[in-house]
Amino acid sequence: MRQPIGVIDSGVGGLTVARELMRQLPKERFIYLGDTQRCPYGPRPEDEVRAFTWQMVNYLLEKEIKMLVIACNTATAFTLEELQEQLSIPVIGVIEPGARAAIKVSQNKRIGVIGTEGTINSKAYPNALRAIDAKIRVNDLACPPFVPMVEDGILEGAEAEGVVARTLTPLKEMNHIDTLILGCTHYPLIRHLVQKEMGDHIQVISSGEETAREASLILAYHRALNTSNEQPVHEFYTTGDIEKFRVVANSWFEDPVQILELVELEGTRSSA
Amino acid sequence: MRQPIGVIDSGVGGLTVARELMRQLPKERFIYLGDTQRCPYGPRPEDEVRAFTWQMVNYLLEKEIKMLVIACNTATAFTLEELQEQLSIPVIGVIEPGARAAIKVSQNKRIGVIGTEGTINSKAYPNALRAIDAKIRVNDLACPPFVPMVEDGILEGAEAEGVVARTLTPLKEMNHIDTLILGCTHYPLIRHLVQKEMGDHIQVISSGEETAREASLILAYHRALNTSNEQPVHEFYTTGDIEKFRVVANSWFEDPVQILELVELEGTRSSA
Repeated sequence: MRQPIGVIDSGVGGLTVARELMRQLPKERFIYLGDTQRCPYGPRPEDEVRAFTWQMVNYLLEKEIKMLVIACNTATAFTLEELQEQLSIPVIGVIEPGARAAIKVSQNKRIGVIGTEGTINSKAYPNALRAIDAKIRVNDLACPPFVPMVEDGILEGAEAEGVVARTLTPLKEMNHIDTLILGCTHYPLIRHLVQKEMGDHIQVISSGEETAREASLILAYHRALNTSNEQPVHEFYTTGDIEKFRVVANSWFEDPVQILELVELEGTRSSA
Repeated sequence: MRQPIGVIDSGVGGLTVARELMRQLPKERFIYLGDTQRCPYGPRPEDEVRAFTWQMVNYLLEKEIKMLVIACNTATAFTLEELQEQLSIPVIGVIEPGARAAIKVSQNKRIGVIGTEGTINSKAYPNALRAIDAKIRVNDLACPPFVPMVEDGILEGAEAEGVVARTLTPLKEMNHIDTLILGCTHYPLIRHLVQKEMGDHIQVISSGEETAREASLILAYHRALNTSNEQPVHEFYTTGDIEKFRVVANSWFEDPVQILELVELEGTRSSA
């Protein structure tokens, strides 16, 4: 099937998921839509996140996508179930893949989760983990300073290390987890700092990598893999500043972004 | 859904997959059928493997399984597609999960595969890998001495190390892979020897662990997870010697096997 796969995110964070999708599924064509203008979704109320997410979904459905990936933990927490029920194409989110990967690697069944306030307050990760294994104990922690820091490009140095150390202190003090889920797509960019702070004995799981793996399975399961060997040309759309988006995307992908356009959704300003 | 999950294998090798399934899906009840009397399937012609596999499948379908796991690489290579087409329940094999996991971790796109003659000659792994990524280069190698050695319980010491070293020599000489798939369910039992022989820079993938992870996803995707918190009691069936099977199973599982019975399939002897 040559139809594209749609990827939605609250902003640029989901590009870490898109990059992994492109790496693990190099024959597939992707259409990415980031709601940069209204990012972050983390602190927003559930109703608002649901409304914004549906706007993005409807935009991509017109492009005849064969699968939808919700590359945003907050949007996944609030909308995955209803999207799976109401769309006729497969829909996957970033939460369950991270949960299943953590269950696979954890030996002591004590799993840590870090994410935005929205994701952590939703209890989506503990629910996903305990639905599979009731004996799992979860230590979760909202890390509000991480997304703004990553968006500002502060990924190294004393300031970044200090923020990570201070923020993770409550999790370190509990100290019994053997696995930590990065429950926000921005966090893989500071994975090295998190790993250093938590220690080498902690296995750090990136939900994005795991989501790409599961997208690959679901495509194969539906016999919907693209069998053509033509080099796919991906498309990127943003509700916010195009040039800022281009700079971030080009710094994360091997090849420069070719197709990048501004999109106006209900309530976003085209002159952003 | 409280119905059990069926697991079939040519013998006891698939118990490594069953163990991972039980660990990653602790609420689920499993029914395992091993065709120990006619093991190994690796050197058998395709028609015979297909006939034997269908006998096992029909036996488990009467037990109203909600999903089937083919925990044998040879049987997966020869029957997965027709079983997926003809059964109304989800069917997963051990080959694609190993392939997808390897694609996820490989950086240089050069992947090694070891397995039985049947699995390697079928080219099932190279086909699965290249269906996803045409640029992947595969070095595969049949390792006929490994299954008999593992079945004889030789998992340590100079003899085992010598056999592993001699057998893997052709693969080491090619020397460019960064990832190696254990394409036979017996091989996780000598994983430490394979890792030592190949070197720490090679990432070794166990198809069994990856299959359990994907089974978890497919169950969730079909909303067929068991939500009850009752401790499940698993059932084991073998076409061969019950006491030999019990010794192996009890050495691999934390809890002793409770239900273990002899099964007669067409062509197997009940007095085996």
